[in-house]
Amino acid sequence: MDEKTRQALLDIVGEENFTENIIDLVSYTYDASSYEHRPDCALWAISTEQVSRILSMANEKGIPVTPRGAGTGLGGLAVPARGGIVLDVTRMNSILEICIPDRLAVVQPGVVYADLQSALAPYGFFFPPDPASGVVCTLGGNVATNAGGLHAVKYGTTRDYVLCLEAVLASGEVMRVGARTMKTSSGYDLCRFLVGSEGTLAVITEITLKIAPQPSHRATALAVFHKLEDAGQAVTRVMHSEVTPSVLELLDGSVISLLREHAHLDLPEVEALLLVETDGMTESYVRFQLTKIAEMFRGCNAAEVEVAATMREAELLWKARKSIGGMMGAIHLDYAPEDITVPMSQIATFLRRSEELSRVHGLDLFNFGHAGDGNLHTNILYDGKDPDQVARLEPLLYELHKLACDLGGTLSGEHGIGMTKAKYMPLEHDPTALKTMRKLKQALDPNNILNPGKMMLPG
Amino acid sequence: MDEKTRQALLDIVGEENFTENIIDLVSYTYDASSYEHRPDCALWAISTEQVSRILSMANEKGIPVTPRGAGTGLGGLAVPARGGIVLDVTRMNSILEICIPDRLAVVQPGVVYADLQSALAPYGFFFPPDPASGVVCTLGGNVATNAGGLHAVKYGTTRDYVLCLEAVLASGEVMRVGARTMKTSSGYDLCRFLVGSEGTLAVITEITLKIAPQPSHRATALAVFHKLEDAGQAVTRVMHSEVTPSVLELLDGSVISLLREHAHLDLPEVEALLLVETDGMTESYVRFQLTKIAEMFRGCNAAEVEVAATMREAELLWKARKSIGGMMGAIHLDYAPEDITVPMSQIATFLRRSEELSRVHGLDLFNFGHAGDGNLHTNILYDGKDPDQVARLEPLLYELHKLACDLGGTLSGEHGIGMTKAKYMPLEHDPTALKTMRKLKQALDPNNILNPGKMMLPG
Repeated sequence: MDEKTRQALLDIVGEENFTENIIDLVSYTYDASSYEHRPDCALWAISTEQVSRILSMANEKGIPVTPRGAGTGLGGLAVPARGGIVLDVTRMNSILEICIPDRLAVVQPGVVYADLQSALAPYGFFFPPDPASGVVCTLGGNVATNAGGLHAVKYGTTRDYVLCLEAVLASGEVMRVGARTMKTSSGYDLCRFLVGSEGTLAVITEITLKIAPQPSHRATALAVFHKLEDAGQAVTRVMHSEVTPSVLELLDGSVISLLREHAHLDLPEVEALLLVETDGMTESYVRFQLTKIAEMFRGCNAAEVEVAATMREAELLWKARKSIGGMMGAIHLDYAPEDITVPMSQIATFLRRSEELSRVHGLDLFNFGHAGDGNLHTNILYDGKDPDQVARLEPLLYELHKLACDLGGTLSGEHGIGMTKAKYMPLEHDPTALKTMRKLKQALDPNNILNPGKMMLPG
Repeated sequence: MDEKTRQALLDIVGEENFTENIIDLVSYTYDASSYEHRPDCALWAISTEQVSRILSMANEKGIPVTPRGAGTGLGGLAVPARGGIVLDVTRMNSILEICIPDRLAVVQPGVVYADLQSALAPYGFFFPPDPASGVVCTLGGNVATNAGGLHAVKYGTTRDYVLCLEAVLASGEVMRVGARTMKTSSGYDLCRFLVGSEGTLAVITEITLKIAPQPSHRATALAVFHKLEDAGQAVTRVMHSEVTPSVLELLDGSVISLLREHAHLDLPEVEALLLVETDGMTESYVRFQLTKIAEMFRGCNAAEVEVAATMREAELLWKARKSIGGMMGAIHLDYAPEDITVPMSQIATFLRRSEELSRVHGLDLFNFGHAGDGNLHTNILYDGKDPDQVARLEPLLYELHKLACDLGGTLSGEHGIGMTKAKYMPLEHDPTALKTMRKLKQALDPNNILNPGKMMLPG
C-alpha cells in the first residue's frame, strides 16, 4: 500500500482505528475456517460516512476490502483472500432502537447477537435465528451469511427477519433498502438480495430486524432409535402432522459412540437419537404438542421416549446435544465441520450414504444437526499432520457435497459459501444461475473490490 | 409485427396458442387497474422451452414481452404498456408435485391459488398467503407481486414461501434458483430476488412453494371502538403481547357508515371495528389467545367485544369485513383501491391524516385493512365522469403515498408497483436504491424487453 493511500485511510478513520501492526494483521489473517491470507492493513470503521469514504477510495484505487464482524464464520468469508483492507465493523456496535409496537429492532452491524437478545429479553421478545456462535458473533455477519440455528425448523433463518438495511456500495454510495413494515411489494427486494451475499455486494452499516414474542413455555423429549431409518421415518411423520416443533435435532450412531467414549455420557448403543422441543403460551399446549410427537416417535419404533417433567430433566436430555462441542476438544483430532442441508425426507438416505463414503475414503465422520429443517452437521475427523489423511479429505468432502445436491439439497444451510465451498458451486447451481450471479456482482462492483476470492465470483 | 416474426412465433407455439384477434387483444389490453394498452399479439406458452424460444427471439428483435397470469392485479403489472407480446401462462397450470414430508409443492405458474389449496386440503396443509383474489389469481402472479392477504400478520407473504424457481431470462436462457430445502446460504438469493420483480427480470416457469399445516381450530371476536386512537392503542397492545393473531382487521368509521347505508348492515356509529382471529391445534388454546386479546381490547376502551361461540357466530362477525366488496358495487362510484402499508404503531395517525387529506382535496375515502401488519386499503371514491373530481384524485393519491412514506411505511404492501405507483417510487426509495434497481435490470435485461414501462425502470 503506497504512502498516499495509507495517509488517506488514516485521515478517514484516525490513528486509533487503523493498524498495520503485524500482530493485528496476523489476527485478521484467518477466521474460523482453515483458510488464511494476510491483509495489508485493518481499519475499524465507526460510522457509515467512514465506510463510504473508505470504499470510495478503495474502488478508485482497486484495493480489495474484506468486511469483518467477529470472525466466527466457518466458510472463510472474513479471510482477506486478496489482501488489501480488512474493514472491521465491531466498533459499530450500538443498538439504535427497539420498537415493540412495530415488532422491530434497529442495530449497527457490530452488535453481538447475544447482546441484542439481552436487550430484548425485558420486553419478552427475541430475535429467533439463534446461531451456535451467538455469544460472540455479530449481527452483520448473521445477515451476510443468512445465519440460522436450532430453531430454524419453526422460526426460519436471518433472511426471514431482515426488514431494512443501510448499505454502502463499492462506489461509496449509501442506500437504504427494504421497509420498516411487515409487508412490502415495492420495487426489487434489494434487502433480501443483500442477505447472504457475504460482503461481496455492499457493506452493511445498519440493520432493521423483525423480532418475535418469546414463548413462555416449552417442553422437551428425547427418543432413542435402534435403526436410523426409523428415526428418518419419525421425522417424516412429524412433517406430516399439524405440529411444528421448535427444535428437532438428530444425533447419529457415530456421534453417540464418540460421546460415550470421549464425553463419558451414559448413552445407549443405538443408531439415532432425536431431541425435540415444543413451545407456546401455555404449559398444557406445549405438553399437548409434545405428547403428539412422542406418539409419532413410538409409532416409528422408538426404543424409548423420555419426556422431561421439569426444566432440570430437560437440561439432562439436552446434555448429549450440548456436549458435542466439548467432546471435539477431547478427541484431539482435526475436523471439517460441514452444514450440508437436504430435504427432510432424504435425511436417513444421506446419513447412510455418508457412512458408506466414510468407509470408502477411510476417514471417520459423524453427523448431528437440525433434522427438522434438513440441515446436518457432518464432521469429518482427520489428523492434519498425516499427509495421507489430508489427501483423502478433499475427495470425501467433494463426494458428500455432491451427494447432498443429488438428493435435492444445498451446499450450505447456514455457514455460507465463502472460500471453503466455492469450488462446489457448480454441483448445486446451473451455469446460467452462476452466470447470473456474476452479472449481478459485475453490475454492483465492477472493480471487484468487495470481498474478492469468495463464492466463485470474479476477482 | 413483421410477417417473419409472426410466423416464427406461430412456429413456436402453434396456431391454437397464438392470437391477433381484435377481441382477444382487447381483453389483453387491461388488468384490474385503470391502465390500458393494446398488445400486437398474445401467446399461450405451454412449456418452458416455448417461453425460452419466445424470449430469445423477442430479445433479438427488441420486442416487448409482458407476462400475464389471471390479470387480477391492481397495479397494471400485466398491461402491455409498450405493446408487443402478451405471454399468457395460464395454460401452464399443472400441480407437478405435492411432497408432505418435505413440506413443499411444485407448481406451474398458471395454477390458480384456490386450486392449490384444494389439492393440499386432503393432506391438512395449505399455502398461507391468501390473496383476496385467490379464487381466480395465479401463483405466477402471486410470486411476481409478492402477494399477501388476511393472514400475513401471522403467516407472512408469498416471499416467505418461495423455495425454488425455474425462470427464463430475457436472453432465453433457463435457470433454476433457490433450493428444495427449508434453509440455504448458498450464493446470491436469486430466488427471493425474483419474487416481487413483476416480470421485469425473468419469466417464471416453475415454482416450488413451502407449505404449512392447516391449523384445525380457530376463534373469532369483533370489537367496537368509539375512538380510532383507542383501536390504534389496542393494536399496539396486541403487538406488545405474546399473542400473534392469525387475523387482525380494522374497519374505519367511514367504511362502517357506508356498510350501514349501502349494505344495510346493523353496525354501530363508531370510529373503528377490529376483527380478530386466533388459530392453533386445540380449542382451548385458540380460546386462551382470544381471551387475552379481548382483555387487551377492553383495556383500551373497547365499547363492546363480541366473542363468537360457534362457527355460525364467527361468520356473522366476519360479515362486515366480507361485505365491503359487494358494497362497493352498490355505491355506483369509481374508486381507487390502495394498499399503502405503515408501521403498526402509525395506523391511527395515518387514518386521521388521511381523513384530513380527504377533506382538503374534497374526495371521500374510507379505510379498512390488515391492522396486524400495517397494510391498509385506502379507497378513494370519485365519479370518473366528473373531470373536476378526476383532477382532484391524483394530488390526493400523491399526498396519501407521501404520508405513508413519511410515517416510515411503504407504497405497496401486496399489489406491487407496476404502472399505478411507478411515479411514487422516489417517495420511498432513495436515488442510490433506485439507481441500483436500474443497474440490476440492465444487467439481466439489457434490451428492456421484459415488461417494460413498469416500476420506473428503463424501457
